[in-house]
Amino acid sequence: MAITQLTKRLGIQHPIVLAPMGNVAGGRLAASVSNAGGLGMIGVGYGDLDWLKTELAILKRTTTKPWGVGFITWSLTKEVFDFVMRYSPSVVMMSFGDINQWVDKIKSYNIPLICQVQSLSEALEVNKKGADFIVTQGSEAGGHGKSQRSTLSLTKGVIDHLPNTPVIAAGGIADGKSLAAMLSLGAVGASIGSRFYASTESLADDKLKQKILESSGDDTVRTDVFDIIREISWPKEYSGRALKNAFTSKWHGNGAKLKRQLSQHQSTFFTDQQSVNLDSAIIWAGECIDSINDIQDAESIVNNMITDAEHTLGSAI
Amino acid sequence: MAITQLTKRLGIQHPIVLAPMGNVAGGRLAASVSNAGGLGMIGVGYGDLDWLKTELAILKRTTTKPWGVGFITWSLTKEVFDFVMRYSPSVVMMSFGDINQWVDKIKSYNIPLICQVQSLSEALEVNKKGADFIVTQGSEAGGHGKSQRSTLSLTKGVIDHLPNTPVIAAGGIADGKSLAAMLSLGAVGASIGSRFYASTESLADDKLKQKILESSGDDTVRTDVFDIIREISWPKEYSGRALKNAFTSKWHGNGAKLKRQLSQHQSTFFTDQQSVNLDSAIIWAGECIDSINDIQDAESIVNNMITDAEHTLGSAI
Repeated sequence: MAITQLTKRLGIQHPIVLAPMGNVAGGRLAASVSNAGGLGMIGVGYGDLDWLKTELAILKRTTTKPWGVGFITWSLTKEVFDFVMRYSPSVVMMSFGDINQWVDKIKSYNIPLICQVQSLSEALEVNKKGADFIVTQGSEAGGHGKSQRSTLSLTKGVIDHLPNTPVIAAGGIADGKSLAAMLSLGAVGASIGSRFYASTESLADDKLKQKILESSGDDTVRTDVFDIIREISWPKEYSGRALKNAFTSKWHGNGAKLKRQLSQHQSTFFTDQQSVNLDSAIIWAGECIDSINDIQDAESIVNNMITDAEHTLGSAI
Repeated sequence: MAITQLTKRLGIQHPIVLAPMGNVAGGRLAASVSNAGGLGMIGVGYGDLDWLKTELAILKRTTTKPWGVGFITWSLTKEVFDFVMRYSPSVVMMSFGDINQWVDKIKSYNIPLICQVQSLSEALEVNKKGADFIVTQGSEAGGHGKSQRSTLSLTKGVIDHLPNTPVIAAGGIADGKSLAAMLSLGAVGASIGSRFYASTESLADDKLKQKILESSGDDTVRTDVFDIIREISWPKEYSGRALKNAFTSKWHGNGAKLKRQLSQHQSTFFTDQQSVNLDSAIIWAGECIDSINDIQDAESIVNNMITDAEHTLGSAI
């Protein structure tokens, strides 16, 4: 069994963190990952309180193991923060934005603060501000992030520069061998999105999961068009990796034009999302979907990953 | 010692390939890597025959171990190919372009063909065409490549899709732990550029090597401005990762304007290169320079990398 600073500090069995994917990592998936010995995470997304109430209730009645929440820092409000914290997560992950106003609040709960970053300079910054763990998210990751750095070199760079801060790799990890690779590199664990997106318990629509299985990493693109059409004000340095489709073919690289024509295209777009029209559906997906070929339940994903990682690493770790 | 299909097939000791960096990987560096038990490579670049004659002569009188050459496929001419092949390389690497017209010629020498690719689809293509090894180059790599895929997921994706073809990872590997990570992933070796750029034997100017040591992966950018100003006709899907400087700050993203104003800027640019003016010097560098902090000779680089990789992997590989 891979014992790392992550498993020890959080009292979990396996160095696997569910990436807090908004609208995908709900109560059932998070609880299943935690029950399997990993760290389940609820994706708070943009802070829909009704959704959170439902999913946090499911989580609380389905697991007694450690679990966490992932906030989108730039969009987080005090109302959402306070609401979520009433459910007593074991850990908080902050991603995408300045953590200044949140650090003391989180520390007052005496729980670890995990900060997700996309560059070495951000890692140095959150380390100074009090991050207990740093998630190094490479551009190959699905969903929101940056295009600046890739998982392998970013993770190694942060480990080398911050030898006393435990680092969790994110982006490109979908199986036991890639987990083993990140542990060999010196990471204390991995944050895993796409592999759990295509799980039984994931809240994603079955058609979207199926599309992930059929697609390759080559079919993904890091783009801002899905944020533009939805008028979600992500800071400009962020984009989201998603499956290419007719919508991205038409608009990726033409964001300014899309902004001017929003009113013409929004209602069709939102209708298409409701009906899961694959020509414009948002399917966040990392490059690692090359290696995802079936829907599994979260427990099997965790167990297969750990078995394969242990086999790969032998007695080394 | 890490024995892999790469070391066995090529009769070398260590699964380390010198990336064939043009104007950097000359005879002395290639011979040193080969003498240290890795696979030294001459970077043929754009095929300057005088340079090749000099460097191949140095190589031939400095090592009797296996070594190879790396061609830029789209720029390769029959004249350059024939000239280089007279020196009897043990292996040929083809990167960046369609290998169709070269496969039979290379195979006629009864030596392995290594093909470097930047996507899963290209990997499937060169595999069909007869590649004996595939180098999976992620966007974090220094120098020319593509921005489409990252090393971790591209390497794993190709390994999963082509289980019978040995895969060499490239991009982001600068030390023993990152080499160990790629071996854990299932790669048979790593192609290493930036770490050898900052070696004693590298042909890069000392000021450029020094700048690499002082810089981080965050300071690199994948750009086409250095090709535009030099009027080197790289196919548009390629760009080169280099250290940012005043020149990239001014022109990156403004390539069309630079093309229109070439005559105004070229002579200054070329003078700056001659005088090694860091404000516009081309310093190809991968994201992994975070982990490069000293100039070492190639033998020490190879030995340190192998010692650390073996230590990391224990008896597992």
